[in-house]
Amino acid sequence: MKYTAGSWKETDGACLRNFNEQAQIDSVNGALALRPQIEAIIDQIWEEGFDGIYFIGIGGTYASGMQVEVYMRGRSKLPVYVENAAEFLTTGNKRFTEKSVVIYSSVSGNTKEMVQLVDRVHEIGARVFAFIDTPNSILTQPDKQDYLILYPMNEQLKFYMTANYLMYKNGEFDEYDRYNKEMETYLADALVQVEKDSDEWAYEYAKNKVAFLKEHKDLPHYFIGSGNQYGATYSYAMCYWEEQMWIRTKSISCQEFFHGMQEIIVDDTPVTLFMGEDEQRPLAERVARFLPRVNGNYTIIDTKEFELKGISPEYRGTISHLVMHGVNNRVDAYMELFLRHPLSIRRYYRQFEY
Amino acid sequence: MKYTAGSWKETDGACLRNFNEQAQIDSVNGALALRPQIEAIIDQIWEEGFDGIYFIGIGGTYASGMQVEVYMRGRSKLPVYVENAAEFLTTGNKRFTEKSVVIYSSVSGNTKEMVQLVDRVHEIGARVFAFIDTPNSILTQPDKQDYLILYPMNEQLKFYMTANYLMYKNGEFDEYDRYNKEMETYLADALVQVEKDSDEWAYEYAKNKVAFLKEHKDLPHYFIGSGNQYGATYSYAMCYWEEQMWIRTKSISCQEFFHGMQEIIVDDTPVTLFMGEDEQRPLAERVARFLPRVNGNYTIIDTKEFELKGISPEYRGTISHLVMHGVNNRVDAYMELFLRHPLSIRRYYRQFEY
Repeated sequence: MKYTAGSWKETDGACLRNFNEQAQIDSVNGALALRPQIEAIIDQIWEEGFDGIYFIGIGGTYASGMQVEVYMRGRSKLPVYVENAAEFLTTGNKRFTEKSVVIYSSVSGNTKEMVQLVDRVHEIGARVFAFIDTPNSILTQPDKQDYLILYPMNEQLKFYMTANYLMYKNGEFDEYDRYNKEMETYLADALVQVEKDSDEWAYEYAKNKVAFLKEHKDLPHYFIGSGNQYGATYSYAMCYWEEQMWIRTKSISCQEFFHGMQEIIVDDTPVTLFMGEDEQRPLAERVARFLPRVNGNYTIIDTKEFELKGISPEYRGTISHLVMHGVNNRVDAYMELFLRHPLSIRRYYRQFEY
Repeated sequence: MKYTAGSWKETDGACLRNFNEQAQIDSVNGALALRPQIEAIIDQIWEEGFDGIYFIGIGGTYASGMQVEVYMRGRSKLPVYVENAAEFLTTGNKRFTEKSVVIYSSVSGNTKEMVQLVDRVHEIGARVFAFIDTPNSILTQPDKQDYLILYPMNEQLKFYMTANYLMYKNGEFDEYDRYNKEMETYLADALVQVEKDSDEWAYEYAKNKVAFLKEHKDLPHYFIGSGNQYGATYSYAMCYWEEQMWIRTKSISCQEFFHGMQEIIVDDTPVTLFMGEDEQRPLAERVARFLPRVNGNYTIIDTKEFELKGISPEYRGTISHLVMHGVNNRVDAYMELFLRHPLSIRRYYRQFEY
């Protein structure tokens, strides 16, 4: 008989854990290659006409909706909104009509609220454009969607590709061709390089966070971010650390941080600030100036520090959230290791009826 | 020389602390009496025409904007939106034009972001309808507003009164006269009675919360609520417990609770659920069914338990957030007592430049 001793301190060192470079590149390039399909669907929606485009989701997909809405808000006159599926099912929206279009994404293809949502939208007579990861799931059925793209992962990228073509159609994106050419040539490699460049840092960050957690089990970790980082901040705290790691978190936008939450930041409160490169960066810069004066346990993840080879400076802000996602992939891989907590397990979600 | 011993356990018993019944009644009735002024302003805005009405705020006033937006979303076809002031100042909004109208509220009348916002809105050529508490403050100056109502407190009520008249003008509120007659006759007394009826409960709640906090200083208190309770949940957690009491909190909507945050609720996690009576009540009911199965340290504050004498059943949902505010007033009074933490002090806000 053989005995084995386990220790949460034991590690293999930074090793690009859970990372398959070619699979990642293929995944992003495969998503970018959906462009003709996305364009054909938008062309059809455009031709039929619409009075509103609603990105609707719940949990993480709602967060992705928030990202694309804030991206378009400052750039487009198109009537584009973000809504929460459960709110749509209860409060509804009086301005939503049979001429409206819902765009959403679902990984499982069977999320309870989204199935109900699609039926409600169809009752109203409106159209549904679905991005689904899982073939043959409920939401891929012909009666559940009007336009369907079946392809795994890359939700945020799919939404931004949709947004970009909508803006192009509306005469608000002159550089559409140049932009796409650049992304289709360089994005996948740039994002893979982000993971490689952040791997060692992520290993140390995760090691320190888990060690701190062992001593401060009750203390939430604070995530702060704005602009297209807000959805990332919100969903990273909630869908990754809370849901997948069972770690307490709070997320807040940079601007709201200064209207309440700042007061509970003291010298050793654990804080991570997500800094992107879109037009809301100044809001994050304000937090970055404030934190060091009252706190010695903060981390700033700044997308500006990554090279993003081939991406023009003026386009970097449009992919900041993807860069952050790459960094967080690395963090997750090592958090899972140090926590000894497989990210796939859930205490309650889909475990019993409630 | 005389020595005095203090103890955080020492109390006076439930005593309607910090409560002046007549002042409260006068305050609410005074707000309701603003109706002719509000109507005259909306009549003028209506006559001039508008392409969008934007409730814009920051912190607590943003939360009040969220409440009025969700109230109108299910009831009105008018183009009414909620925005965050700092986001408007950075990202902007391409659909916002010189025909748009901003409605906002400010207690101090000099909040940094709101002063900048008003100037930006005026640069665009749009109009500003301001509710200000403090006379002679910056935001009351003639160049900072187009329509001004100067009256203290009752922000949420002022916004709902504005919303109600907008919907009446748009043919979406047939019972406007009956509704107002009822509110003007009964609301102030009903809200005062809420405070009286909840006082003893609030004393015990606060006593227990503070005792629990002494043993669990790091653990956040979780607040959950949806519909017109969401703004209440968000701002109560952030602007009262965090900002005024320096207690860690996290707030989440009922629907989003089930997509991540539920996983960090264990047997003794402190949770308070706000249940109102608007159309999103079923979302809170789902949380109320879930909590007892995994948690033994939750509190449900349900507005349904209050009589609200004279208020018709069908109108109760439109004032649920005011009822909750009344309960929370009582909680605040005793939290301040048991914490020995004057609610007016701030660690950082307005203490130094950042």
